[in-house]
Formats: sequence, C-alpha cells, structure tokens
Amino acid sequence: MTDFQSELSGIAKAIEVALDEYLSAERLGGPGAPPDRLVAAMRHGSLNGGKRLRPLLVKQAAAVFGMEREQSLVAGLAVELIHCYSLIHDDLPAMDDDDFRRGQATVHKAYDDATAILAGDALLTHAFALLAGESCHADPAIRVRLVAELAAGAGAGGMVGGQMRDIEGESRGFSEGEIAQMQAMKTGALIRASVRMGAILGGADAAALTALTLYGEAAGRAFQLADDILDVTASAEAMGKATGKDAAAGKQTLVARLGVEAARKHLDGIIAEAIAALGAFGPEAEPLRATARYFGSRTT
Amino acid sequence: MTDFQSELSGIAKAIEVALDEYLSAERLGGPGAPPDRLVAAMRHGSLNGGKRLRPLLVKQAAAVFGMEREQSLVAGLAVELIHCYSLIHDDLPAMDDDDFRRGQATVHKAYDDATAILAGDALLTHAFALLAGESCHADPAIRVRLVAELAAGAGAGGMVGGQMRDIEGESRGFSEGEIAQMQAMKTGALIRASVRMGAILGGADAAALTALTLYGEAAGRAFQLADDILDVTASAEAMGKATGKDAAAGKQTLVARLGVEAARKHLDGIIAEAIAALGAFGPEAEPLRATARYFGSRTT
Repeated sequence: MTDFQSELSGIAKAIEVALDEYLSAERLGGPGAPPDRLVAAMRHGSLNGGKRLRPLLVKQAAAVFGMEREQSLVAGLAVELIHCYSLIHDDLPAMDDDDFRRGQATVHKAYDDATAILAGDALLTHAFALLAGESCHADPAIRVRLVAELAAGAGAGGMVGGQMRDIEGESRGFSEGEIAQMQAMKTGALIRASVRMGAILGGADAAALTALTLYGEAAGRAFQLADDILDVTASAEAMGKATGKDAAAGKQTLVARLGVEAARKHLDGIIAEAIAALGAFGPEAEPLRATARYFGSRTT
Repeated sequence: MTDFQSELSGIAKAIEVALDEYLSAERLGGPGAPPDRLVAAMRHGSLNGGKRLRPLLVKQAAAVFGMEREQSLVAGLAVELIHCYSLIHDDLPAMDDDDFRRGQATVHKAYDDATAILAGDALLTHAFALLAGESCHADPAIRVRLVAELAAGAGAGGMVGGQMRDIEGESRGFSEGEIAQMQAMKTGALIRASVRMGAILGGADAAALTALTLYGEAAGRAFQLADDILDVTASAEAMGKATGKDAAAGKQTLVARLGVEAARKHLDGIIAEAIAALGAFGPEAEPLRATARYFGSRTT
C-alpha cells in the first residue's frame, strides 16, 4: 500500500467513526429530540463508505502548516456533510432520479422523497453547527472564517449554483467555457473550499492561501474530468453507480466534446498545474501532490 | 396605527429592502457567478410580502439591550432566509404540495421542483454566510454563537425535525404531548432561536438569556396555536393561502383536539406566560410584550 492509499484509507475510517458519533440524536443537538427516522435517513445518506476525498484535502492542506489529523477532522466532517446532502438532493426524482448510490438504495428509495429532502436539509444545517462548535477550532475568528468559506463554496455562487447550471445545460447546448464554469461550481467549488478551509485552519498567510487556492481549483477540475472520463470508460460495477448516464441524459461534459484520449491528455496538464501551484512548499505538501496524481490515475 | 403596527411595518420594509439588496448575484458571493434562474427563484420565495415576525423578534430582543434596528438587521435577515427556504421545501409536491403562498404561485409552480429544491438549499446556505460576515456583528465570537444558535433551531433537533414529526403524525395518531413536541420544534424552535439570537447580539447575561428563552418558547407556542385557530376560522382570502387544510390533511393540531373556544382560552394563558417571563425587564421589553399580545389577537 502506498503512503497515499494508507492516508486515504485512514481518513475514510476516521470520518466513518466521526459520522457515526456525530450523527446521533444526542450529538445533533437542538431544542428538541431529532426524530429517529430523520437521523436514520441522515446516516443512510452519509455512512455509505464514501472515499472522503474532501476531508482528505482539508487534512492535507492543514498538514502543510503542521496540523495533526484530529485538529482538522471536524472541519473535514462538515465539508463531507455538505457533499452527502448534495448527493441526497441530486438523487431525488425531481433532479437526477437515481435509485442507487455506491451500490445502495438512495435515501429517497430507502425512505421517501419528503424524508430525503429533510435529511439533506438537516445535514446541510448540521455542517454549520459543527464548524461553529469549539471542537472545530479554539479560535472563534477561525471558526467564523470556515463558516464563510463553506457557505461560499456550497451556495448559489458555488455548488448549488453549479447544479442549477448543469440542469440548464441539459436543455440547451453549452460552450466549452460554459461547461468549465458549470463544473468549476458544481464540483470544483467544494473541493476548492476544502483546501482553503485546511489552509485557514492551519493559519496560512495570504500568499500561501493564494497558492493553495490555485491548487484547489486545479484539483477540482482534475477530479471532475477524471469522473467524466470514468463515466465513459468504467463499468457500473466498478463505480457502484450507473455509468454512461451523462451521455444518456445529454449532460454536458468535456469528454463528450474532446473525446477520451484528448481528455486524458488535458487531465495530465491540469495535474501538472496543481502540482506547480505547490512550488513554494516543501515535503509538507507532498500529500497534496500525491492526491493530485491520484486524480490523474483514478480507476473508480 | 399602534406602536406595534408601526414597528411591524417598519421591520417588514427594512427586511424587504435588505432581501432585495442581499439576494443579488453580486452580494451572494462564492467562487462563481450565481445563475440568474436560481437567484430569481430565491427572490421569488423570499420577496413576497411576508410579515417578517422572526426578524421582528430578533430586533426586539436585541433592543432590550439597547441595540438599534440596523444592528440586528443582518441576523434577522438570516433567520428570515431560513424561514423562507423552509416554506419553499414544505410546499413541494413531495411534502405539502401547495400551489399558492401569500396569494402567489409557490416556487416549484413558478419554476419547477428541481429549481425549488436548489433555491431552498441556497437560501439555507446563505443564511449562514450572512451570520459569518462582519456586517452581522463586529465580534467573531458573537457571530459564531449566532451560527450555532440558528443551526440548532433550524436543524434535526429543531425546525427540520419538527417537519419530519409532522409528516409522521399524518399517518398515525399523536397524543397531545406529541403534538406539542412536534410544534415546539416545527415552528417554535426558529421563533425561540430568533429571540435568543437577539439576546446574544445584545450581550445578554445568563439570567437574561434564560428569561428571554422562556419568552421565546411561549411566543412560539402562541404563534402556532393562533395559526391553527386561524386555519379553522379564517377565510383563504384573508390568509392568502389555503385554509381548512390541516383538517383535510389529517394534520394533528391542538385545535382539532380541544375545539376553537378551549384553544382560544389556552392561547390567552400562553400569552400571559410569555409576558410573565419578561418580568425582570422594564419598558425596554415593551415591544416584546406587544408582540406576544399580537399573537393573541391575530386575524391573518
């Protein structure tokens, strides 16, 4: 097992443990008792063996400044809750209408549409509760910056806006620039936010934050392009979800535009760009470099 | 016009102006440009002439500690965005399936279900962005407490959990205690959070926060009971939405259980309780007392 693989499996285990702990009626908090069915649906949509790449990026960016995994775990968990809620809502019949996710029934199939909407809303809300709590970071000024960063990455000018653009793209042709803009928001914004949140946790100065932002933007593009390539080349079995769906749904991707081979070449260029953005850092940024290389060689 | 009416109309105007300003592509922020359709749907679901009772409560609770309206406006706006998002999601076909709200087409009727889901998600996310920004309060320690408070009131142990309980109640009988618990979460939690957020903004000490929390909880119960009474007694025209719907949907309310006259008497008791909770305060809490009395005499 490479260092990268062992780090990835370590964060996946740590996030799974943290999700199990934090997504309980006791820990969710609030003036009333969270209903069992809602908590179960929130857990179904999160405790599903995801790769936890966003918490990995939070951790790796924080590690550039010497932070230990435990010190960035709650912030990583908050980003992961946003990612999980977005999948629950995207899978709804009114959106992508997917029945399976990572080989399991999606939340609205396992429960019902109303429960899936509410479970997504509750996960989204809880992400901010986590960032606001002292277990995230001792300094409220840091915590409030994390809230602002996550909201910007997840909101109308980020992930949700990208999802809206994606839907609009199904009914009309997009230019390559429009596809890139949509993807930078839909997938890129949360990956960018993950890296920036790690940097903020670590106390990055302005120059380091700028460099890591460039890395995060390139990493986001690489991740999405690899995903689009896999949608064309990988089997549904390997991916644990339906593949070939983008083309069937008339989704706009760069792979459809460029072809697989040209897309792979483009991907190599983006990964070189991500690694170049880390030029001012030494071995402390090696894990981020490994993640960029992983995005270039993903098979699932 | 009474002082209360003039205060209510003043906050409604101020919130309408602030919504118009903050719900624009420029002010929403994020790494990308919010799509026009999403921004339009967010505005449709918010700029609709609501009474803005939650921002009123934030303002009135902050005013107990001498804060001016402008100093609590952004926090009030954040609560209002949560309220508006919850109405957009509640109106969806998968939930209450309502076509009209305040005499206008609901967001999913004016746009479509996917856009309504995303507009709700974006409003929810933006509420936390507003609280995290410096225009909310100069002190990050206060801002982060507001984030925690709003997340607790809006999440699985608050508003969203109450909505889940409400849906569960449609398919099985609820006891009076269960109805009260559901309503304390569904409507009460956000009203309680509004009052507490005003108190936190104003720098309330522990005793004042406890007193205002009791007020907020009673005010929430009064508001909901008045709403349930109006659902039975008022016309759809006066309310700008369908009435008599609770009974038709088999919704569990105390009015259905007690009858209108007994419910009115119960309401008087709750309002006395809310006002009693303010016993330690002087004339600075008079606006909160007026709001409690208003909840007892609502006709729309």
